Amino acid sequence: MSMSTAASPSPIQVFRDPSPLRQWRRQLLLSNKSLGFVPTMGALHEGHLSLMRQAAAENTDILVSIYVNPTQFGVNEDLSSYPRTWDSDVAKLQALNAELDAQGKAGGRVSAILAPTSRVMYPSLPPSSEVDGDGSFVTITPISRRLEGASRPVFFRGVATVCMKLFNLAAADRAYFGQKDVQQTVVIKRMVKDFHIDTEVRIGATVREEDGLAMSSRNVYLGERRRAVGLVLYRALRAAEEAYASGKTRREEILGAANEVAQGVLAEQQALSPSERALYEVDYISLADPESLDELEVVDAAQGAILSGAVKMAPLEESREGEDCGLGDGQVPVRLIDNLIMKPLVS
Amino acid sequence: MSMSTAASPSPIQVFRDPSPLRQWRRQLLLSNKSLGFVPTMGALHEGHLSLMRQAAAENTDILVSIYVNPTQFGVNEDLSSYPRTWDSDVAKLQALNAELDAQGKAGGRVSAILAPTSRVMYPSLPPSSEVDGDGSFVTITPISRRLEGASRPVFFRGVATVCMKLFNLAAADRAYFGQKDVQQTVVIKRMVKDFHIDTEVRIGATVREEDGLAMSSRNVYLGERRRAVGLVLYRALRAAEEAYASGKTRREEILGAANEVAQGVLAEQQALSPSERALYEVDYISLADPESLDELEVVDAAQGAILSGAVKMAPLEESREGEDCGLGDGQVPVRLIDNLIMKPLVS
Repeated sequence: MSMSTAASPSPIQVFRDPSPLRQWRRQLLLSNKSLGFVPTMGALHEGHLSLMRQAAAENTDILVSIYVNPTQFGVNEDLSSYPRTWDSDVAKLQALNAELDAQGKAGGRVSAILAPTSRVMYPSLPPSSEVDGDGSFVTITPISRRLEGASRPVFFRGVATVCMKLFNLAAADRAYFGQKDVQQTVVIKRMVKDFHIDTEVRIGATVREEDGLAMSSRNVYLGERRRAVGLVLYRALRAAEEAYASGKTRREEILGAANEVAQGVLAEQQALSPSERALYEVDYISLADPESLDELEVVDAAQGAILSGAVKMAPLEESREGEDCGLGDGQVPVRLIDNLIMKPLVS
Repeated sequence: MSMSTAASPSPIQVFRDPSPLRQWRRQLLLSNKSLGFVPTMGALHEGHLSLMRQAAAENTDILVSIYVNPTQFGVNEDLSSYPRTWDSDVAKLQALNAELDAQGKAGGRVSAILAPTSRVMYPSLPPSSEVDGDGSFVTITPISRRLEGASRPVFFRGVATVCMKLFNLAAADRAYFGQKDVQQTVVIKRMVKDFHIDTEVRIGATVREEDGLAMSSRNVYLGERRRAVGLVLYRALRAAEEAYASGKTRREEILGAANEVAQGVLAEQQALSPSERALYEVDYISLADPESLDELEVVDAAQGAILSGAVKMAPLEESREGEDCGLGDGQVPVRLIDNLIMKPLVS
């Protein structure tokens, strides 16, 4: 993450400090331009790029932030192993601009990257990941305790806190988040509403691999075997979605379909030898209200629901000769999340 | 707090909703005007007006908010009895504008009042005053636990939360706070720094009655007898300030001088009859670091210190014939706070 890359010939400005970013932003405002903001932790993939294409269609300028936020990683989570890929991230943004140019698209381009240090983002106290840690935080409860929050108690405090800071720095007209992190979209929308933040939150559809696996920066750690088995989450959610589509509205009918897939695949894997199988644990499969994230016994067809889940892919027990085990040789545990929105049924 | 008053002939606009306020603010920005913001809970007094005079000297326009914020009152505190005086507040703002006009002052005027409902300020969940209550909150720790926070555990969470909302609504160039609420100034400055809020925090000196009592909206509940005795806090802080000015730097020397005054006056009162005396309890007298608010054993002359205190004036035990006992007949307990800044000594 050196400055030399940023200084290479590029039409994308890199801001590391608030003051020049503010001046740039003010100029956009006074020139009647619009700003779309895409916050990321780097390790950019097609999911991020698709948000940027959406932002390009809706704004004259795009600001992308690249900042791995320590306060959203729990003390035992993967902050240190989270992929940091500055050079390829910048190359992807430049390639995206070239793509938009080549297509003769009228809309915006990625004009700037905000890549702050933690000293800039947490100027008073070191960023704390402790549940009772001190600092300046935004908390959005009770929704932050649901779903992902149950196993990651500081996660949404960290996300809301860093987004409040970034929103204040960007002062964007629109900010873009992926549907894949559905609870994040609910928390951020709530924060924007409750704190009267003058930025519109836009949600982009989950981008998937050809077989349906949701794209994620953490997928690079999976390797072939865990990647194939990890698809179980999406398949389970799809089974539940089909149950809903076929007219089922009760929790046990909808989640029953998902759990059957999840348990069936696990039983198949357990029957294989350690060099052939990939084991996992289902963290949760949830059927929740779209705004409160409260678990639902029955789906109200006028409200719809969020169907979501998380599975923890265990490290491989044994690898085979020449097997592609992914970054970290299949030894990095990978937590996969996914969701499907069950839209309200209009009668 | 009816709209009829706001509709009376007046050059001051009243906003109750975010959207028209935002349009107005945007026009100011595009016209290259500057906005000073003075957040209040109404019950305006000379302290507020002095902040507005400062804002008038530094901005072309002033926005005053009048909103009694429920989340900063603890469940056993005086939310319901907090004075609400909309008509006289508006009259005072109009008189201030007339005064600035009459003086031919070039600067700004009070152009608008923001008077939102709690439904607007807390759109998702009812505003909670419970320590463990749910909602969308800003917390600034550990400084919010110090001093006032020790006896008012939700106070600064409520203050920071409502100020974040108001700052986002006002999008002001500068926001004005009184030195009298010194911990509030420290918390708000910290919030603005940590969350990169693009508003400069300006602090106005504490405005005092002729005898030195710090002005406060709650003073109307004191009445003559408690008002006179309540001056003990200021006198105690002055005694400590004199000790510092005379070269003392150790905690026990500086606070010893203050405690001597506080205990002496209390002993005098206790010796009087119930119809003559006004009793009180000293909540704290503190000597603290100006940024961390940690209690100091020795004042570092290069840093200075904040000398602050709180006393709780008990209800009168007996009133006398014709005595002015204040609003609520001397039966409303009143908590007084005050502070003095011990500036760094430049050698």
